[in-house]
Amino acid sequence: MIVVPGEIADAMDVPGLTIWDGGDVAPIREARFYVPSYMAGEWAFSVMTDLPLLEVCQLPTAGFEHALGHLPVGVTLCNAAGVHDASTAELAVALILARLRRVDDMARAMPRGEFIHERFDALADKRVLVLGAGGIGQALTRRLEGFECEVVVVGRAAREGVRGREEIAELLPWADIVVIAVPLDDSTRGMVDADFLARMRDGALLVNVARGGIADTAAMLAECGRLQFALDVTDPEPLPADHALWRAPGVLISPHVGGNTTAFLPRIARLVRDQVARWQSGAPLANVIVS
Amino acid sequence: MIVVPGEIADAMDVPGLTIWDGGDVAPIREARFYVPSYMAGEWAFSVMTDLPLLEVCQLPTAGFEHALGHLPVGVTLCNAAGVHDASTAELAVALILARLRRVDDMARAMPRGEFIHERFDALADKRVLVLGAGGIGQALTRRLEGFECEVVVVGRAAREGVRGREEIAELLPWADIVVIAVPLDDSTRGMVDADFLARMRDGALLVNVARGGIADTAAMLAECGRLQFALDVTDPEPLPADHALWRAPGVLISPHVGGNTTAFLPRIARLVRDQVARWQSGAPLANVIVS
Repeated sequence: MIVVPGEIADAMDVPGLTIWDGGDVAPIREARFYVPSYMAGEWAFSVMTDLPLLEVCQLPTAGFEHALGHLPVGVTLCNAAGVHDASTAELAVALILARLRRVDDMARAMPRGEFIHERFDALADKRVLVLGAGGIGQALTRRLEGFECEVVVVGRAAREGVRGREEIAELLPWADIVVIAVPLDDSTRGMVDADFLARMRDGALLVNVARGGIADTAAMLAECGRLQFALDVTDPEPLPADHALWRAPGVLISPHVGGNTTAFLPRIARLVRDQVARWQSGAPLANVIVS
Repeated sequence: MIVVPGEIADAMDVPGLTIWDGGDVAPIREARFYVPSYMAGEWAFSVMTDLPLLEVCQLPTAGFEHALGHLPVGVTLCNAAGVHDASTAELAVALILARLRRVDDMARAMPRGEFIHERFDALADKRVLVLGAGGIGQALTRRLEGFECEVVVVGRAAREGVRGREEIAELLPWADIVVIAVPLDDSTRGMVDADFLARMRDGALLVNVARGGIADTAAMLAECGRLQFALDVTDPEPLPADHALWRAPGVLISPHVGGNTTAFLPRIARLVRDQVARWQSGAPLANVIVS
């Protein structure tokens, strides 16, 4: 039995899928291949302990930390690496442009009918440091190509066209814009701390479309005013309504919408279709995190 | 005498320029080559009648309609075609992304600390119709290349890679996003009227980074709710504080900031430096509008 959330099943157009979006577990007890609902709560993962025949859990997200604790022994866990690259990289550009060109301030001035004409920053001629050479970093670099800006990409290790992580400290003072596009793991948790931010030039913009835990919220708050921030992810998340970050100067916050767009369904449907076909034919699965 | 506004002279780094940013005309009576201040009032053009030796007026803008009525007979008028392409095309992308990804709504929700997570549109997979195959249209097309969207460009006449204006009516229902990037002239004034808008599909986005007079404001207001609008230029402009467009649903307005960014000075400085060199050496000037 192949168990898939309704909206993904609709986009897949493959016969014989069992649709499940939560609720009673009885109808999916025979599940062997399971796709949890996107943006669902813990129930979507804890249900796996009630699925005795389960062989594969195919996540609809690139992140997988939230599933690990619920994974029964012997079940293969695959993530959706690549599915959110287009949408997340696109949001990074949206946040960069909105903050530089002050679209956020303009939107807030609109209800008052304020026509504030000033000279603002353009992305053209700027120096962009992309931290992360994976799918999102590459998708972002492709999108930045037409904008007449200079882009340097940093990966785990230096290679052709990619600088190594050990060079970050010396690259930070060079950049006008720093984009965080690394996965959250022990090597990146808290990476953006007071020292990191202190190396950024006055007025520079930090964009985080990765995970809130990569950047230290208190350290960012302390630099508001000198630096700018555009954050799709925060720590804590969701950010409480009374959190100072919502109202700090030069800060633009989007509510973790990097991946959740119209670009999601066609791309996740393609991945799940391919994975189901591999699994049915006995071919090796892609994106295996735990096997 | 070569008369240049202060900020452009600073960026040019050429000796022997006379700086003038308005005020007393006496110091520039000997002007032969004159660059009006950027975003200045009518005084910057009417002053030309007081410059008996004037040979060349080099505008800092692509638009030139505002200078024509003040141009003394025999003076060559050049515009700054190309200087604003990067900045204006960049704003078009900023407005598209901000509206599709709802960065405007998010910015307005920030002061209330509202974390509104919904699925919004991505630019990926969308169909973009660019009206205008000139500098801005080309700069926009280059910027859209990395975004996994489909782009069709319309020029005055059909040619390789460009569709002709007579095809607009049949292309409008195809497009998710329509960007206006044509100059204002008798053939484009009021081009975006009720018929034009009626052909656009439900939910489609019209972006105007050209001139307000190209789109009929009343016709746009009548379609608010069914269509979305992102407008850097309006008619009238500036839009009065009590104008309904400021508060209409699905409308994002930026205050004519397409060209006025940090990208302006290096590019106008390069153009004026080249034009002065041509004029001094007797070579033909570029961007001649009236000679």
